[in-house]
Amino acid sequence: MPEPAFQDYYPDEGAHCYGCGRLNATGHQLKSYWDGEETVARFTPKPFHTAALGFVYGGLIASLIDCHGTGTASAAAYKAAGREMGTDPPLRFVTGSLHVDFLRPTPLGPELEVRGKIIEVTEKKVVVEETLSAEGKVCARGKVVAVLIPETMLKKMTARR
Amino acid sequence: MPEPAFQDYYPDEGAHCYGCGRLNATGHQLKSYWDGEETVARFTPKPFHTAALGFVYGGLIASLIDCHGTGTASAAAYKAAGREMGTDPPLRFVTGSLHVDFLRPTPLGPELEVRGKIIEVTEKKVVVEETLSAEGKVCARGKVVAVLIPETMLKKMTARR
Repeated sequence: MPEPAFQDYYPDEGAHCYGCGRLNATGHQLKSYWDGEETVARFTPKPFHTAALGFVYGGLIASLIDCHGTGTASAAAYKAAGREMGTDPPLRFVTGSLHVDFLRPTPLGPELEVRGKIIEVTEKKVVVEETLSAEGKVCARGKVVAVLIPETMLKKMTARR
Repeated sequence: MPEPAFQDYYPDEGAHCYGCGRLNATGHQLKSYWDGEETVARFTPKPFHTAALGFVYGGLIASLIDCHGTGTASAAAYKAAGREMGTDPPLRFVTGSLHVDFLRPTPLGPELEVRGKIIEVTEKKVVVEETLSAEGKVCARGKVVAVLIPETMLKKMTARR
């Protein structure tokens, strides 16, 4: 059985995201893991995720960088606190800001690899720099500033429904 | 009959984008229009486009800002050239960079309004600043640097398939 992904540790009330929530049956269900000091996620777009025909549309690339960034933030925050992932109180992050530089068209078909490098970890914020590659070539670079959700707010978000 | 949207003027080879292509039956088919000197697009997310339950996931917000930005770039470039939209050679843009600041959680349910303000138009580049609002409140701000696709490259992209 493979090692659980960062997103598998999210509390249920934070696991509905279309990009990475294990409880969102329709969504991408992105899975992120440690790879040494860096983090990695892999995702194969669907044939309809086109920009111009034959290439991946930018919104999906932004979404993968976004969700891999908040997942990496969670893992980095647990690690910095010397805690096991999934222990309470949950360290679940949302995106404060997202930046993507599209360096070249991303071919549609091959699996994409998103890699994250942790730049800064404070009590309430984690900064992650990322690359998105296809067939070994970096097609986009990204930066996510992720902000810790207070546990009370997570519960309130769920209660709103 | 309503006025055609910017995206309705895209040449067929540039109209397959999941975010805004009229020829992508599965996608969002975002439609952008002039509103005075600014531009506007409206989009109602689907119930599964969740972040935490009750809120819109960031990847969709990024996608709407991205596609409204490239649509606005096309309209701005035709206007700056004193040309009618849809005339040849096509002025179709891709995203060079995308930045999104998420200011507050975006409620899932109401129609979202994306507004664009044209900051800079040069021969090969258009810069657009945007807001994304729900129920009259700005939930996210964005900036897109859009880059003109040479007509030959558009045709090559299609031929690749």
